Amino acid sequence: MECVANLELGQYAGSLLKMVDIPSYLSGYVDGEGCFTVSIAPRPILRVGWEVRPSLSVSQNGDRSEVLLIMQDYFGSGTIRPDRSDKTLKWEVRSLPVLIARVIPHFETYRLLSGKQRDFEAFADVCRWMARGDHLFPGGLTKIVWRIREMNPSGKRGYKSEYILTKIAEMKA
Amino acid sequence: MECVANLELGQYAGSLLKMVDIPSYLSGYVDGEGCFTVSIAPRPILRVGWEVRPSLSVSQNGDRSEVLLIMQDYFGSGTIRPDRSDKTLKWEVRSLPVLIARVIPHFETYRLLSGKQRDFEAFADVCRWMARGDHLFPGGLTKIVWRIREMNPSGKRGYKSEYILTKIAEMKA
Repeated sequence: MECVANLELGQYAGSLLKMVDIPSYLSGYVDGEGCFTVSIAPRPILRVGWEVRPSLSVSQNGDRSEVLLIMQDYFGSGTIRPDRSDKTLKWEVRSLPVLIARVIPHFETYRLLSGKQRDFEAFADVCRWMARGDHLFPGGLTKIVWRIREMNPSGKRGYKSEYILTKIAEMKA
Repeated sequence: MECVANLELGQYAGSLLKMVDIPSYLSGYVDGEGCFTVSIAPRPILRVGWEVRPSLSVSQNGDRSEVLLIMQDYFGSGTIRPDRSDKTLKWEVRSLPVLIARVIPHFETYRLLSGKQRDFEAFADVCRWMARGDHLFPGGLTKIVWRIREMNPSGKRGYKSEYILTKIAEMKA
């Protein structure tokens, strides 16, 4: 809770510190508005040819960004910036060390109550595999692509997993 | 917390009961996905000619409605049904007694951390004024219309407050 005390939330701060459990509140908020994503994009500089990028993002109308500031403070990281596609603000964490050290442990303790929990579990697996370098080798990357297929697709961007798997197989051959 | 124990949440129930503070989680979820609305529509059968309808609604993708079930259980009320406009499910409470007895006290204890708190405060005022019958008289209805003007407009539906205020003034005259 103490991290919220640093924020200037005006009239609300006094009373919310009394009752609201901030970690639970943030899990609830992320269950509604958050998105665990793992994108994979071509990156010729890497030996496997593909870069794996996990991120947690939370969007909010630009006129009420208070909870994004609390997120940033609570997790001690992440950037807040306007979303190109609409009039919202987006808080996003892409740092693998922060995801491993702060974000994943939080959501393992304060679990999501909806089916989004399954996305989180795949996300956490991928992050931990990346932390030990699996994504840098064809076998590990293949495993990651299969794990990501189980996640809720977030939008229409990105490469189809079949295409990536084919490319990895070609490289192995 | 005990109300959640009634739900069959499968693998999640065991662990979430240990850590997540359900009331705080639900406030966080509503901060992200919920909408406090007061609509006013013509109703010739009423002496003032207008009906005031407050509601709290929360939408969610139809494939993960778990949190809506928890809402329904926690507040002991509300309907869950498909939203006409998109592929979501919506939990909604329209009952004034339930709003007064369960919903408003909850959000006064587990306050919203975003600017949506201001919408809630106007909403709570209107519900309490209605509980004492203010909305049945031109003076009270006028006060309600002015209070609603301070709330975030939820979509483009509904009558403009200027129009309603003019109609009430004509009736008074």
